[in-house]
Amino acid sequence: MELLPMYALTAVVLEFKMAAIALVQGRGRVSTGHFVLPEDAKLFKGTEVTQEAPIVDRASKVWRNDLENIPIFLILAGIYVAAGLSAKAFAFYCVVFMAMRIAHTYTFINAIQPARTIVFTIGALIMFAMMIQILIEVVF
Amino acid sequence: MELLPMYALTAVVLEFKMAAIALVQGRGRVSTGHFVLPEDAKLFKGTEVTQEAPIVDRASKVWRNDLENIPIFLILAGIYVAAGLSAKAFAFYCVVFMAMRIAHTYTFINAIQPARTIVFTIGALIMFAMMIQILIEVVF
Amino acid sequence: MELLPMYALTAVVLEFKMAAIALVQGRGRVSTGHFVLPEDAKLFKGTEVTQEAPIVDRASKVWRNDLENIPIFLILAGIYVAAGLSAKAFAFYCVVFMAMRIAHTYTFINAIQPARTIVFTIGALIMFAMMIQILIEVVF
Repeated sequence: MELLPMYALTAVVLEFKMAAIALVQGRGRVSTGHFVLPEDAKLFKGTEVTQEAPIVDRASKVWRNDLENIPIFLILAGIYVAAGLSAKAFAFYCVVFMAMRIAHTYTFINAIQPARTIVFTIGALIMFAMMIQILIEVVF
Repeated sequence: MELLPMYALTAVVLEFKMAAIALVQGRGRVSTGHFVLPEDAKLFKGTEVTQEAPIVDRASKVWRNDLENIPIFLILAGIYVAAGLSAKAFAFYCVVFMAMRIAHTYTFINAIQPARTIVFTIGALIMFAMMIQILIEVVF
Repeated sequence: MELLPMYALTAVVLEFKMAAIALVQGRGRVSTGHFVLPEDAKLFKGTEVTQEAPIVDRASKVWRNDLENIPIFLILAGIYVAAGLSAKAFAFYCVVFMAMRIAHTYTFINAIQPARTIVFTIGALIMFAMMIQILIEVVF
């Protein structure tokens, strides 16, 4: 697959994955009927609480971890595409990173360790490999 | 308007909108004199507290929601521009998304429901429409 | 330096800087043995607590501030590169922004004020200068 289609696919898949967390959060709020915002408690006829339900809080941590990793990966991937580097290596980075981030969300939501730490680390190493290639081929 | 100028305008407007939240937070901290960081309490001659003032906390939630939506929208929009897809559809996506995110900040800060949920949902649907178009025209 | 290499260098340096915060957090969790997630407390044979250690919480605030500033800076910088604007001005924006964000992390982790507020403000002003240039040369 060429660079731009692969890049587009990766961005779309990862955004669908992130948006799926919003569904976990919404379901958690409605099923418990607990809302931290008074206007939401009123709208959904629930109870105003000071802390989110555990599953909502956990989903929030998953998303936060995504925000620390996915936008910067996609920005670096955009630089890779603009520089026109190897399409084969790019497909490898993208497919592994997508798989690891999906596995990270699954293992984080379901509290599965040490799998979560392992898939997180592989995802981070893939991003670093792409960064090193960018440094060598684009910067120096 | 061509693709790149429209894209540039959208990114600049959304960044100005996000930066405006920082002003709400700063004003909230100074007007209450409450700071969670001891070095800030000392610098601004305020009181060290363990929790931010309600308006500062609310502004923080608005910004968090922005971070979950705006960078990924702009990254997808960048792919759209790089692929050179329809400028008319792009202007529609950008203008509606900008309007919905500005309305989202306004309704969130002022606790206006169900308007907040409605404008959030329209913004998310616009992003999904752009993603579907990218999937069809760039990936497949 | 040309636009794309300068852009690539900035993205890589800022991602390394953000990733360094993860090391501060990891070291903070392991040295205190305090974990907010029960599966992590079990894996690392630590204690489950309801609140992160102060240094971990502080590192989290640093990263949150990075997320509010770095991805959007890089997205705007990508637009600047795509538009092919002045390479000299771009190198100035990138070098100053990188230096200010590194100094921001250092002063935030070590609670040094008013230096933290000063370097944050200079970084924000640099981003705004780049935005104004983009508005003038790309949008209008």
